Amino acid sequence: MGNLVIVRHGESQWNRENRFTGWTDIDLTANGIQQARNAGRALAEAGFRFDLALTSMLKRTIRSQWLMLDEMDAMYIPIISHWRLNERHYGALTGQNRAETIARFGEEQVWKWRRGFDSQPPLMDADDPRAPWREPRYQGIPRDSLPLGESLKETVERVRVFWDEVIVPALKQDKNVIISSHGNSQRALVKLLEDMSEEEVARFDVPNSVPLVYKLDTGLRVLSRSSMSIPHPEVSAIL
Amino acid sequence: MGNLVIVRHGESQWNRENRFTGWTDIDLTANGIQQARNAGRALAEAGFRFDLALTSMLKRTIRSQWLMLDEMDAMYIPIISHWRLNERHYGALTGQNRAETIARFGEEQVWKWRRGFDSQPPLMDADDPRAPWREPRYQGIPRDSLPLGESLKETVERVRVFWDEVIVPALKQDKNVIISSHGNSQRALVKLLEDMSEEEVARFDVPNSVPLVYKLDTGLRVLSRSSMSIPHPEVSAIL
Repeated sequence: MGNLVIVRHGESQWNRENRFTGWTDIDLTANGIQQARNAGRALAEAGFRFDLALTSMLKRTIRSQWLMLDEMDAMYIPIISHWRLNERHYGALTGQNRAETIARFGEEQVWKWRRGFDSQPPLMDADDPRAPWREPRYQGIPRDSLPLGESLKETVERVRVFWDEVIVPALKQDKNVIISSHGNSQRALVKLLEDMSEEEVARFDVPNSVPLVYKLDTGLRVLSRSSMSIPHPEVSAIL
Repeated sequence: MGNLVIVRHGESQWNRENRFTGWTDIDLTANGIQQARNAGRALAEAGFRFDLALTSMLKRTIRSQWLMLDEMDAMYIPIISHWRLNERHYGALTGQNRAETIARFGEEQVWKWRRGFDSQPPLMDADDPRAPWREPRYQGIPRDSLPLGESLKETVERVRVFWDEVIVPALKQDKNVIISSHGNSQRALVKLLEDMSEEEVARFDVPNSVPLVYKLDTGLRVLSRSSMSIPHPEVSAIL
């Protein structure tokens, strides 16, 4: 059975601005670039080797993956970027600042949207120019598969298809897999791996660029999960 | 039928030092990085969109491809890195400076090694620590497929397998394909596309980061081949 490492992307511009990002294609900050490099260097120093690299179709995970592979001197391994690994779609909240959303809807409602396992945000209008099927990158995907807003539960369900069809077969072929993830696609993966309760997974906190290392048995049961400590002082220096 | 664009990687450190690089994994110079970005920007401005990105397993083509895709806002398309797109293996000449090689073996002999279609360089010793099968990236490839030195003719033959099995099927599925290539893997592709004579192809000159754009008919015959001019003044400023 291959090993599995999941790493949330480095800090993005909208992480910094505290905005709901969802499927908006926001890039890393200079700090996020350094965080991803540090994660890659820590993985390299710990002797990790990977056979398959996965990302979402959003550049904050792709660039993070590139930076990690560069640090591991493994730029040549196959990279698959798939929409099913995208961040949870935040519907009409997309682009909104969290503090303003709290001022408008109240803290309780926003907390529910953010951390309620099955609470859907208000949906994005189908006429919105940001609707996924208007973007070239999502052409060829059936329109009714593409969301206009998702609960974490719905995110888990669409990640599950990719988990079953791509990740599990790769692990069973003894491939070591590294996934560059988003906060909520990582929660979805953790739920699928550990069968966490809905409450637990919704509160499971995922910092940027901290590798989550899974050891699995042949039945894909989790033998251990550990968060790597990133020993490079540059991170805190830049933060 | 999809379109095909082939772009040689940006300037590498050993291009600058005038050394035979072959399968050595040498990175781009700062100038090479800018060249690749400029090629990507020119392709973006000309409206090119790609469905599949190919590279060798060497980082000078992978990084060039990443930079081009970044400029085209198309980081999410699939990237396949394959050893059959590697540079011609330069055998025992690998790492040698060209001027020193000329001083040692004479201009005529070196010209023959460089431009004779079927002249093999002296082979690398099988005990050489740089023999391809010693590198983790080439594990899983049958050892007798991996070269210790190649004529351009031999390079064409191993590129041909990848051309037939991956590139032609993708083009026939109407996919637009961009290949980040080396000087000699590009010569091999041009030979396969245009059925150039051995003399012509050996002398076909391939500058760094100038996109070669092919229009093909349904029978894969070449309707046109054009070299894009890269209008960005930064190139000459940096050069």
